[in-house]
Amino acid sequence: MDEARHGLPVTVPSTALFTDQYELTMVQAALRAGTAQRRSVFEVFARRLPSGRRYGVVAGTGRVLDAVENFRFEPGLLAFLERSNVVDRPTLDWLADFRFRGNVRGYPEGEVYFPGSPVLTVEGSFAECVLLETVILSILNHDSAVAAAASRMSVAAAGRPLIEMGARRTHELAAVAAARAAYVGGFSSTSDLAAGFRYGIPTVGTSAHAFTLLHDSERDAFTAQVESLGTGTTLLVDTYDVTEAVRTAVEVAGPKLGAVRIDSGDLLVVAHRVRRQLDELGARDTRIVVTSDLDEYAIASLAAAPVDAYGVGTRLVTGSGHPTCSMVYKLVARAAGEDPRAPLVPVAKKSLGGKLSVGGEKWAARPLDEYGVAEAEVVGTGRIPEELARRRLGVELMRDGRAVARESLDAARERHVRARGLLPLSATQLSPGEPVLPTRYAGAAAA
Amino acid sequence: MDEARHGLPVTVPSTALFTDQYELTMVQAALRAGTAQRRSVFEVFARRLPSGRRYGVVAGTGRVLDAVENFRFEPGLLAFLERSNVVDRPTLDWLADFRFRGNVRGYPEGEVYFPGSPVLTVEGSFAECVLLETVILSILNHDSAVAAAASRMSVAAAGRPLIEMGARRTHELAAVAAARAAYVGGFSSTSDLAAGFRYGIPTVGTSAHAFTLLHDSERDAFTAQVESLGTGTTLLVDTYDVTEAVRTAVEVAGPKLGAVRIDSGDLLVVAHRVRRQLDELGARDTRIVVTSDLDEYAIASLAAAPVDAYGVGTRLVTGSGHPTCSMVYKLVARAAGEDPRAPLVPVAKKSLGGKLSVGGEKWAARPLDEYGVAEAEVVGTGRIPEELARRRLGVELMRDGRAVARESLDAARERHVRARGLLPLSATQLSPGEPVLPTRYAGAAAA
Repeated sequence: MDEARHGLPVTVPSTALFTDQYELTMVQAALRAGTAQRRSVFEVFARRLPSGRRYGVVAGTGRVLDAVENFRFEPGLLAFLERSNVVDRPTLDWLADFRFRGNVRGYPEGEVYFPGSPVLTVEGSFAECVLLETVILSILNHDSAVAAAASRMSVAAAGRPLIEMGARRTHELAAVAAARAAYVGGFSSTSDLAAGFRYGIPTVGTSAHAFTLLHDSERDAFTAQVESLGTGTTLLVDTYDVTEAVRTAVEVAGPKLGAVRIDSGDLLVVAHRVRRQLDELGARDTRIVVTSDLDEYAIASLAAAPVDAYGVGTRLVTGSGHPTCSMVYKLVARAAGEDPRAPLVPVAKKSLGGKLSVGGEKWAARPLDEYGVAEAEVVGTGRIPEELARRRLGVELMRDGRAVARESLDAARERHVRARGLLPLSATQLSPGEPVLPTRYAGAAAA
Repeated sequence: MDEARHGLPVTVPSTALFTDQYELTMVQAALRAGTAQRRSVFEVFARRLPSGRRYGVVAGTGRVLDAVENFRFEPGLLAFLERSNVVDRPTLDWLADFRFRGNVRGYPEGEVYFPGSPVLTVEGSFAECVLLETVILSILNHDSAVAAAASRMSVAAAGRPLIEMGARRTHELAAVAAARAAYVGGFSSTSDLAAGFRYGIPTVGTSAHAFTLLHDSERDAFTAQVESLGTGTTLLVDTYDVTEAVRTAVEVAGPKLGAVRIDSGDLLVVAHRVRRQLDELGARDTRIVVTSDLDEYAIASLAAAPVDAYGVGTRLVTGSGHPTCSMVYKLVARAAGEDPRAPLVPVAKKSLGGKLSVGGEKWAARPLDEYGVAEAEVVGTGRIPEELARRRLGVELMRDGRAVARESLDAARERHVRARGLLPLSATQLSPGEPVLPTRYAGAAAA
């Protein structure tokens, strides 16, 4: 997409400073110790799902590929690192030439995940892999949290369109990523123009109370909006009295009025009343859009209401109670020495305080039962058993530092629906519960 | 600061697309109706604090000034809007020339706020003010949420330094703003290099488990780190056995070892044990840094532990349970007609579903009682009474579209400590409660 190259307003020239300082100082120490080039395997996984959630949703993978490809230290960044005494001269020289040349495998975007799922595997030298920790986790933890909330809301909406409207409730650039993740999770459009610009997500808009209040009467405001935007527009009908507003709206726009938006009150009651009134006025095709602090539960509670679309803000972009995932980036294997042919040895932190860490590079598969329903998340090390290889989850994402699996957001969005559809039915219950699939460790990982 | 001009990696060339589509279509409709130039006053306020919180913290004001000054529609953005049929030709022409030329007043950064506090007041034509809604709210809602959490944590830390380490738990650019807001709220440093680069916040780093696991032994890892980074470095001592690691650390670095970090286990117990061991080994000046899912409650529970610094991640950048504020941007007054000398009339949406909206441009003051303690947040319309004028809270931030109140982050950080210090003592209780000051409406606003 051409716009991405403009760098406006979302792309940033380099992602190399989205990095915690210790990554650079570890590189410095490893360069000096001669261990920086040891072949290493890092793995992204979550030890648990957010409390009560039945599945997680992988999102942000496409953004990770962009971030890793753009991870370069330009002169301005190097000057900052030098001036701040973050690292020494040999390290600065090494960073100046840096680009990631390793391999990345992982769950494709939109796939679901469970505790222990090897969501992303990064392989290369220790130094090149350790540098990517923060930026990879930032993206996956944020985007997957929003996508998981979006997925639950899209289940609750049962086919009715969902509009992402949360930009004002989160950081202005997080908002753009949130709109993207929401689309992967099942939303159909966004109010955020930057998300339309950067990712081609369909953008929509209605009107604010300010527009009505600006005018000398609600009728003036509706007239202004319809004359400029056409009868297909969406009129906001709850600035003063809803019944009065609906009557005025149909008088001004005629029965072909596109939609009305309700943003306050008991939406269930008001939606029924407005539908009845619209029908009586002959505006049978005028749709009803509801907004106002919706989450998946509120959406579900409106299932029987005559609502045509939901606009969701705060609760979506804050992950509906879980604004981040707890994915971590852990070294799971590294070469026994500096020789590039040295064998990989599995490594893991000693478990303390209940933190589960399983060493070794993992594969994962999700076998189906006789009814075609997923029965477990099987995670193993070593060679994947033949009967599981067909249900393997990871795909190649980058080879020698180049992305090999770019895809459209629609592909990720469709994958999510398919993956969720293979889970046991209880996956889509909104009530809190255990992960809908058990994670089973196979091979050496089971030890 | 020179770095800000590089635009790397945080500054974006334009903030004009951090905008919800309806803002542009409202401008289009108002341009056509001839109402776009009506003088208008918009106000940012929160109807409530996050549940249980006793005060809010204004943060992001400095970023708002940057965002408003850079709010321009470059040709690439206009081409996108045209191609997507978001607005018509006259509106595109208007946008091409757009820059904000109005006035902004508000609470200075670091100030505390309460329900109804007029945190920011934006005055200009309807069209120029309505365009800024989303970007202003994004910044204030995000940054203030993080600053509020930071403030509570800094109270709990009672003078011990707090390190911001949350980049990996939030969107990569939200992380930079979060580090900034955390600094305003009382944190002293960050692990996020982008925040050091962009805002000059001191950056720090320790080491990760991966560094220890990379090496053939913990001793090799510690030796590599100390040889490269000096004895003042911070060694991570919980990869295998803490007691063993502390012994090795002091053997390798000597008693001048800077610090050890503990990232798991019962921090209270482990910190005591490590302190005793360090002292026995003669490393009396070696500090203890603790990390691992800390929040204000965990920090408070470590008050009696021999801890020298806290590293906080997830709970800080997600606002410790409240990742966003509920600030809104409402039209509160507008001219009675197109004449630039037309008087302003107060406007407000009809209250429905308990949403409080008070029309008219507000002032706010925080009078002190006889002991010098703040006694109320007084919010009024019309002329401010003389006895309150000395305790007025708002300041001029932009005049005719130009920022007039830029200041250092340190100034905001110091202001926050002062403002919090004037609140009743119960402000800093961590337990849930009511806002520590009542909001009183005065003048016409009380009607």
